[in-house]
Amino acid sequence: MTLSTGESTLVLMTSLRPNAPPLRILLGPGPSECAPEVLAALARPTLGHLDPLFLSLMDEVRAGLRAAYRTENELAFPISGTGTAGMEAVLVNLLERDDAALVGVAGYFGARLAEIARRVGARVTEVRGEWGRALSPDDMRRAAGGKRFKILALVHGETSTGVVADLAAMRAVADELGALLVADCVTTLGGMPLEIDAWGVDGAYAGTQKCLAAPAGLSPVTLSARALASVAARKTPITSWYFDLALVKSYWSQDRAYHHTAPIQNIYALHEALRLLFDEGLAARWQRHARHARALWAGLTQMGLALLVPEAERLVPLTAVRVPTGIDEARVRRFLLERYSLEIGGGLGELKGRIWRIGLMGAGSKRANVELVLSALRAALAEQGWTAAADPLPAVHAAYANA
Amino acid sequence: MTLSTGESTLVLMTSLRPNAPPLRILLGPGPSECAPEVLAALARPTLGHLDPLFLSLMDEVRAGLRAAYRTENELAFPISGTGTAGMEAVLVNLLERDDAALVGVAGYFGARLAEIARRVGARVTEVRGEWGRALSPDDMRRAAGGKRFKILALVHGETSTGVVADLAAMRAVADELGALLVADCVTTLGGMPLEIDAWGVDGAYAGTQKCLAAPAGLSPVTLSARALASVAARKTPITSWYFDLALVKSYWSQDRAYHHTAPIQNIYALHEALRLLFDEGLAARWQRHARHARALWAGLTQMGLALLVPEAERLVPLTAVRVPTGIDEARVRRFLLERYSLEIGGGLGELKGRIWRIGLMGAGSKRANVELVLSALRAALAEQGWTAAADPLPAVHAAYANA
Repeated sequence: MTLSTGESTLVLMTSLRPNAPPLRILLGPGPSECAPEVLAALARPTLGHLDPLFLSLMDEVRAGLRAAYRTENELAFPISGTGTAGMEAVLVNLLERDDAALVGVAGYFGARLAEIARRVGARVTEVRGEWGRALSPDDMRRAAGGKRFKILALVHGETSTGVVADLAAMRAVADELGALLVADCVTTLGGMPLEIDAWGVDGAYAGTQKCLAAPAGLSPVTLSARALASVAARKTPITSWYFDLALVKSYWSQDRAYHHTAPIQNIYALHEALRLLFDEGLAARWQRHARHARALWAGLTQMGLALLVPEAERLVPLTAVRVPTGIDEARVRRFLLERYSLEIGGGLGELKGRIWRIGLMGAGSKRANVELVLSALRAALAEQGWTAAADPLPAVHAAYANA
Repeated sequence: MTLSTGESTLVLMTSLRPNAPPLRILLGPGPSECAPEVLAALARPTLGHLDPLFLSLMDEVRAGLRAAYRTENELAFPISGTGTAGMEAVLVNLLERDDAALVGVAGYFGARLAEIARRVGARVTEVRGEWGRALSPDDMRRAAGGKRFKILALVHGETSTGVVADLAAMRAVADELGALLVADCVTTLGGMPLEIDAWGVDGAYAGTQKCLAAPAGLSPVTLSARALASVAARKTPITSWYFDLALVKSYWSQDRAYHHTAPIQNIYALHEALRLLFDEGLAARWQRHARHARALWAGLTQMGLALLVPEAERLVPLTAVRVPTGIDEARVRRFLLERYSLEIGGGLGELKGRIWRIGLMGAGSKRANVELVLSALRAALAEQGWTAAADPLPAVHAAYANA
């Protein structure tokens, strides 16, 4: 037993330095800061994935996710992967080769939905819309052209543009098309109203690193009874084994059939994040996110910055701000990171270089962050010679006074 | 904004109790206990997935994985999912519909390899072997029947049986078949000799929750230049977007192209686990695992228990022990968990009820655990009226004296 392998030129790693990340103020599109209780939960000692105590914890996580999603769906659990894993899991279960999928594409994550549906082999009809505006039910109807579809899929909260979709209105369209309704709830779960059962959403997935204030690594998914029946009626096997929700479900339900080794600590963290959510109250959590977002909007507007999205279509947890003419947007973000240890996001796809994305999510949704990001942004813009139209603070104070 | 939804009967979750897991001694097939430094790393505050400090950390993780895998492969990084996600990622990239795959199946994870290859649409030839014995190169040649194959895939360390494969010998077979060699290294990476370059392995994946002593949730993967060329020459797109290694690679390499939000804290933990690995030294880590495994084997044998696997084919980090006639094996495991807070594994698949699986992995590979599990097992067996043939301790002491 030796590391010598003849003529091998392999350089052996001899040392790594310990990682000591500084405390960032995370006000980008996610990850958001973890609640301190959630970080503490992450560091608890491992239980086996079939330990009776861990199985009880899984039951609590399922119950908590049902409550957070506002659903009585039997299938509600986290996939062992990030939000995109949840997206792929829902699509690969619901779609077979040559199934017709109507997909709303008015942003980066809508485009990803369409791309994954195509990879599954579905015939995808994209409903393209302006990045920064919501697609209307009539947009969907026109694109559908009277044909029937297996699914109608769209993003509830488009993280690339800061737009929220009206899922209840999309349910009516899905009914006309004979389609299951699939919604990307990565940025909305726990951050603004989401009613899986009342709105008739058949398939949804989310992330843990946004409004739930837990680390990335899990994707809570849920499927309606109708969606499960559709999976059971498939003619072909699901191309993925890791994302086969019927197999994953038999581990998360009373069968406890081994599927893969659950990421134990990530589930501890999600459990703690759900505990904090229900301690605060789901409605109170939604209201808190709305209160701080409105104060941010008031302050940005008062400074003379333009918001990308009209208020009626605006996502609460994430705000897209237009970069003023002549400003180097990446330099602004570097300034915030270097001087304030504060992160905001840039634009993605066709909005790259044209917007900033400011997230007030989970533990990060608080007044201190609203006022700090406005103050820091003023400094960063002043550094490039841009002067605010007015002091934003009076507008912020007024927004809180009226909340 | 209210939680009332008309006639909804949804029960709102109002409270969860904090999770306070007890300290388990994890001597099953994994997860193993996390090193305390790794648990501490998990609890560090979040960095954004494009933060320059996080990008540096990613570079260190890539370098560390290359060294752990003993490879100069450019593609070496963790997939954001568990070991099975790594298995699926490697297969879905290397295989297209109707490609021929020769798969060694002499245990539960070999069978999973074959199942996932079939789901990808490959024409799979299974090489079946006795569970508890290694497949020989001639077994593979006979099953191949002179035909050519795109891949030859097998499990390096079969966690369901405790058998290790001779990968260097399988390379010769793969050459005869014109095949890429794919190996499941979930239980071997960091726990026993593994030489990706010297043995000519083209595709490998592992888990973090075994000999690396980190939490589950990531799967280190690596592909050779030859494997990457094969992916580049595909005629059809990869059916998975989440597992498309060319896309994931462009996030992990200097492009830094956003693919999905990395599970930041899991990567902190893997970084710390690699730091501990190289502090100890890779060869020293392998030798430590071998020393404690041999002491365990000596003790079990001395007690009169039979090991499933002949010594020459025995996996180091995991030992399969036959359940003596008349013993209720699940009752033994309950006894260990309840009286000692100690977990060992039962059998999987056709070995269910017939073996126990004792893991000495990562931080759990230590003399205290060897002597404790022998002592606890004696007590659990005595509770069912089974008497050890002899005191195992003298044999254990002799094994350590000779190590």
